[in-house]
Amino acid sequence: MTQSQHHYLVVMAGGSGTRLWPLSRESKPKQFLKLSGGNKTMIQETLDRVRELFPLGNIYILTNQKYRQLVVEQVGDQFNEDQIVLEPSKRNTAPCLLLATLKIYKRDPKAKIVVLPSDHLITNNQEFINDIQFALSQADKKRLITFGIKPHYPSTDYGYIEVKKSVRFTKVVQFTEKPNFQIASNYLKKKNHLWNAGIFVWKADAFLEEFTHWQPRMYGKLFKGNDFLNTEKEDAFLKREYPLVEDISIDYALLEQSKNVYVLRSNFDWTDLGSWKSVYDILEKDWDSNVLIAQNGHLSESSNSLVRVEGNKKVIASGLDDFIVIDTPDGLLISPKENLDSLRRLLQ
Amino acid sequence: MTQSQHHYLVVMAGGSGTRLWPLSRESKPKQFLKLSGGNKTMIQETLDRVRELFPLGNIYILTNQKYRQLVVEQVGDQFNEDQIVLEPSKRNTAPCLLLATLKIYKRDPKAKIVVLPSDHLITNNQEFINDIQFALSQADKKRLITFGIKPHYPSTDYGYIEVKKSVRFTKVVQFTEKPNFQIASNYLKKKNHLWNAGIFVWKADAFLEEFTHWQPRMYGKLFKGNDFLNTEKEDAFLKREYPLVEDISIDYALLEQSKNVYVLRSNFDWTDLGSWKSVYDILEKDWDSNVLIAQNGHLSESSNSLVRVEGNKKVIASGLDDFIVIDTPDGLLISPKENLDSLRRLLQ
Repeated sequence: MTQSQHHYLVVMAGGSGTRLWPLSRESKPKQFLKLSGGNKTMIQETLDRVRELFPLGNIYILTNQKYRQLVVEQVGDQFNEDQIVLEPSKRNTAPCLLLATLKIYKRDPKAKIVVLPSDHLITNNQEFINDIQFALSQADKKRLITFGIKPHYPSTDYGYIEVKKSVRFTKVVQFTEKPNFQIASNYLKKKNHLWNAGIFVWKADAFLEEFTHWQPRMYGKLFKGNDFLNTEKEDAFLKREYPLVEDISIDYALLEQSKNVYVLRSNFDWTDLGSWKSVYDILEKDWDSNVLIAQNGHLSESSNSLVRVEGNKKVIASGLDDFIVIDTPDGLLISPKENLDSLRRLLQ
Repeated sequence: MTQSQHHYLVVMAGGSGTRLWPLSRESKPKQFLKLSGGNKTMIQETLDRVRELFPLGNIYILTNQKYRQLVVEQVGDQFNEDQIVLEPSKRNTAPCLLLATLKIYKRDPKAKIVVLPSDHLITNNQEFINDIQFALSQADKKRLITFGIKPHYPSTDYGYIEVKKSVRFTKVVQFTEKPNFQIASNYLKKKNHLWNAGIFVWKADAFLEEFTHWQPRMYGKLFKGNDFLNTEKEDAFLKREYPLVEDISIDYALLEQSKNVYVLRSNFDWTDLGSWKSVYDILEKDWDSNVLIAQNGHLSESSNSLVRVEGNKKVIASGLDDFIVIDTPDGLLISPKENLDSLRRLLQ
């Protein structure tokens, strides 16, 4: 694998999702949890997946101030302090990526940037890396590249990207919000929609040009501190100004508006692990299609269920079919998979 | 209610059952738990139920050495130290009741004794008290009296007492072990069997005479310390000799052999709360026949289920029908009621 000194990685680790309650929560969201059955947290796995593609000094972790300690604990030994960029307040992906890109562009006007969420699971890594490298080769002064995953079921949990032709790399027709089941089924039949994976590749200058065009106000607010970026004054500037920018996603602020967004049709296995059902789906099952994660657990007369108990607590469970059971010291979830959606309000 | 100075109460509180795991356990068995939905533990409720019938100084709590602290905490403020009799090791009900009766007989040769388990639930108290008083009136130099509960379902969890006639007070034909479902159903049809509630009433001298006849060896072992009983030497004697006596129940040692055992057919509501199903049965249900005991709990799309969570932990449960869910800091049980029996080995 060849590294380029102009290739940069931005890992977004500021999310505070609680959809995997009671394990994930405001104080320790998904990216800091071990969910894939292995011994690493999501953010550790994310970095391991692509580390070799980038010079170590070209990697940035963007996270919220309050997750600084978790980031330092989990991946901090690999990076300098200034590679962990702290948002003083949660402001969604648009300001976060504008900040990262301004910082990198100031350092290297030829930079090409790969943006990865820190809490998604990808299993067949070689295809993923091939796609990253292909996208890097295609990122130029114009194109903003997003990854579209070939959908294999009519998910109502993901946003979709409409494309015209079934080719590997093509211009986006439009982004669409999470559809209902019928619409999603239709997408699958027509084969002209891909899942929006939230993975982006762009040249810094292309991104900044589009951004200043579509979001001049936000651009202005952060650009006025451009002199402070990558200096010891950056922190004070961000503390003062960052909380004042709009709370808006990069999809909404830029990608849905720009005429220069391309999508790379990707075939690697991808999930955002956005629900306990999707966590169950990726874990290794026993003969009854159960997953029991407990140091001292016994599961009987059950099938298609995930039972996950923290610590050394003893658990005896029986008669569960298609259930999710998650136990932590301060929360207990017991639900059929099909009821999880209707519990979402309670879970958040 | 009239007390007699010759009436004594012996409460047996040495059991170490774990059938209500994970709430009950070796270190804190059922008699020390709040199970009936109120604010009192089983042993507190047991004493409250009959306290007025006995002079305060005539009440004895028999328990194991290791439960001394729990007894003192829960009911100790009412009694003198010497009313809490500590068995140095667990030795079942025969030696326990022989010891209690020897102690009481030495103090009062005219004593009549009521023996109550400390971990059973009785709800219609007036009938219970009427029966106790009737039994006390019938206990004489010969008769050992046991309480038989009119069975209202074919329980396979209780021992039965066979009687000849369906009268209120009659001689026992025989004791029978826990039957299977078919035999139990037959008992109900024939109306000649009562549940053995483990509640006894006898004159101390009648009991001791029968005991010395059927268990002369055990009698001898404890009687040789008769001089020490109720003195400061009792403790040392028991520590030395008690662990050497046979580990055997009063039913097996005496009642199944004696020809002088009578049974009082009782109509009060009684349960030994020997399973979570029986705990569920006695608790107040909501409209969906659920019982949710949790400070911070939400139960939806569920019916006929008991969900009990200790402490301030948040619980969200859904899709449970006919389930038992019991959560404590170090144990979690999730099971359909009908599977509880087959889990018993694991629960113990």
